[in-house]
Amino acid sequence: MKKVFVTGAAGFIGSNLVDRLLTNGLTVTGWDNFSTGQELFLEDALKHSGFRVLRGDNLNVKALTDAMVGCDTVFHLAANADVRFGLADPSRDLQQNTIATFNVLEAMRANGIKTIAFASTGSVYGEADVIPTPEDTPFPVQTSLYGASKVAGENLIQAYCEGYGFEGYIFRFVSVLGERYSHGHVFDFYRQLLEHPQRLRILGDGTQRKSYLYIKDCISAVLQVMQMRTALGTKHRSQVYNLGTTEYCRLTDSVAWICEYLGVEPNLDFTGGDRGWIGDNPFIFLDTSRIQKSGWKAQFTIREGVIRTLEWLQKNQWVLARK
Amino acid sequence: MKKVFVTGAAGFIGSNLVDRLLTNGLTVTGWDNFSTGQELFLEDALKHSGFRVLRGDNLNVKALTDAMVGCDTVFHLAANADVRFGLADPSRDLQQNTIATFNVLEAMRANGIKTIAFASTGSVYGEADVIPTPEDTPFPVQTSLYGASKVAGENLIQAYCEGYGFEGYIFRFVSVLGERYSHGHVFDFYRQLLEHPQRLRILGDGTQRKSYLYIKDCISAVLQVMQMRTALGTKHRSQVYNLGTTEYCRLTDSVAWICEYLGVEPNLDFTGGDRGWIGDNPFIFLDTSRIQKSGWKAQFTIREGVIRTLEWLQKNQWVLARK
Repeated sequence: MKKVFVTGAAGFIGSNLVDRLLTNGLTVTGWDNFSTGQELFLEDALKHSGFRVLRGDNLNVKALTDAMVGCDTVFHLAANADVRFGLADPSRDLQQNTIATFNVLEAMRANGIKTIAFASTGSVYGEADVIPTPEDTPFPVQTSLYGASKVAGENLIQAYCEGYGFEGYIFRFVSVLGERYSHGHVFDFYRQLLEHPQRLRILGDGTQRKSYLYIKDCISAVLQVMQMRTALGTKHRSQVYNLGTTEYCRLTDSVAWICEYLGVEPNLDFTGGDRGWIGDNPFIFLDTSRIQKSGWKAQFTIREGVIRTLEWLQKNQWVLARK
Repeated sequence: MKKVFVTGAAGFIGSNLVDRLLTNGLTVTGWDNFSTGQELFLEDALKHSGFRVLRGDNLNVKALTDAMVGCDTVFHLAANADVRFGLADPSRDLQQNTIATFNVLEAMRANGIKTIAFASTGSVYGEADVIPTPEDTPFPVQTSLYGASKVAGENLIQAYCEGYGFEGYIFRFVSVLGERYSHGHVFDFYRQLLEHPQRLRILGDGTQRKSYLYIKDCISAVLQVMQMRTALGTKHRSQVYNLGTTEYCRLTDSVAWICEYLGVEPNLDFTGGDRGWIGDNPFIFLDTSRIQKSGWKAQFTIREGVIRTLEWLQKNQWVLARK
């Protein structure tokens, strides 16, 4: 791994990954269509001579193929990353996640690049029967178009590993928090409380139990695996890792931390029901023993991740204006 | 279920399903692009006043939507059904299976049709660790583009059930045999032995263990489930059923039955290795207890299915000229 291609390089996770790869001395080509990515997230990266960013879309397979020339490893992070709005336009997850991943694989194949890391999601487990959920939990039923499109990406990668000798690393993230976080419940709550500190509208009844992972821990886990190249020793030349902490919290815990940090005491206005939206999962908690066996361990608790996210949002309020 | 739409109506399974649906008194619209479907397979159906066939492609979502008007149930069987050649053109499974299924679901949504039966495959289990393989076996690793594209179809259906109130029935078939069978090992072996009865080229080393299901048993199982509408009582409004017999055979068993039937004693020319092609699975045997609990039971053994296939091929040698 020397010359790395990162799709979604200007996104939350992508830009943090780019910074770390550059710090580690790698040469990085960033690729983003800037539909949700932010140029400001690449401010530091652009100071490195080892970095360049190209503006382009994963649905343009020709441009994507040209952009990848000379790279040896692809981190495929670009995606429609918001699980909540799939039903408004079901073609979005198909295009931006399933077909985009196919195009990334085809561009790799055209360039003779065989190593891919893929940002998948704990949402692929739907409403898991086994909690904490291990990677080899019973064949799940998909409950969201987002989850379905991410499984499709995973499965395409696995088939390319088997059929074309690719080497695949699939990371099923819980929700990630931290610097450059720009969608999700902490973002929504922070923006609401900035506008009206007296009340907070919460999707669901607040009992949802969720897991979160701090961005710097997330990047460390991904890179640890990519350095070990564990998939090479397996039957399928691909490997799946859950990424998360060993704890979960209730949505109301997170609300309490956010309110305490901001020094506000809003009335809580719950929309009701045990889930926030159709396809929401009331309890997400992944079994992370596999990644822990690699020696990786989260350095930050969920609470610390939430606080660091708030600190970053306070210093970067421009991001609130985006939506 | 009164007015039924069948994609892939002119195919092997599709045309047999159409005949049974018409016998049962339903009104049927058949849809096929005739890329592999055969007009002759619809000869009987076209004598029924309750049947019409429309020529069209699942990639044309507008035509598909128009064709479905007035139907209440969709049997989605159209697919690139050959697992072996995915690697030669990986876009084929994506287009004809994944995107085609998405289009079928969108056409249904546009028409307010909510009930779908889907022809999936035991290939979704890849090389299963648990044999016989139950529907809820550990989250599998895909080993073929075909399997990956069928999982993608299953998962889209599940997400539509959750998000749009669809009712989904997913059938994971083993290989199906019988009248109008026109690709697979019995077809290949029969054609070879017709050309040169002295030798038979066999992919792999012949030790592959596979399961087969006779077409009439397959159709009975599908219709039994569709009449019970078991998915309505489940959390996800979708249901998955393995379809197969309670036996499997070695490839060499099948070779012996075929040679005995034809009265030939060819030299067997094994290409070697424990599988026939990249992504082939050396042992397919599904746990069918779930479908058996519905009261369905296969009426024909694998051997009987092979013999009936040979009988049909002998009477319909025109089908051999197709490839």
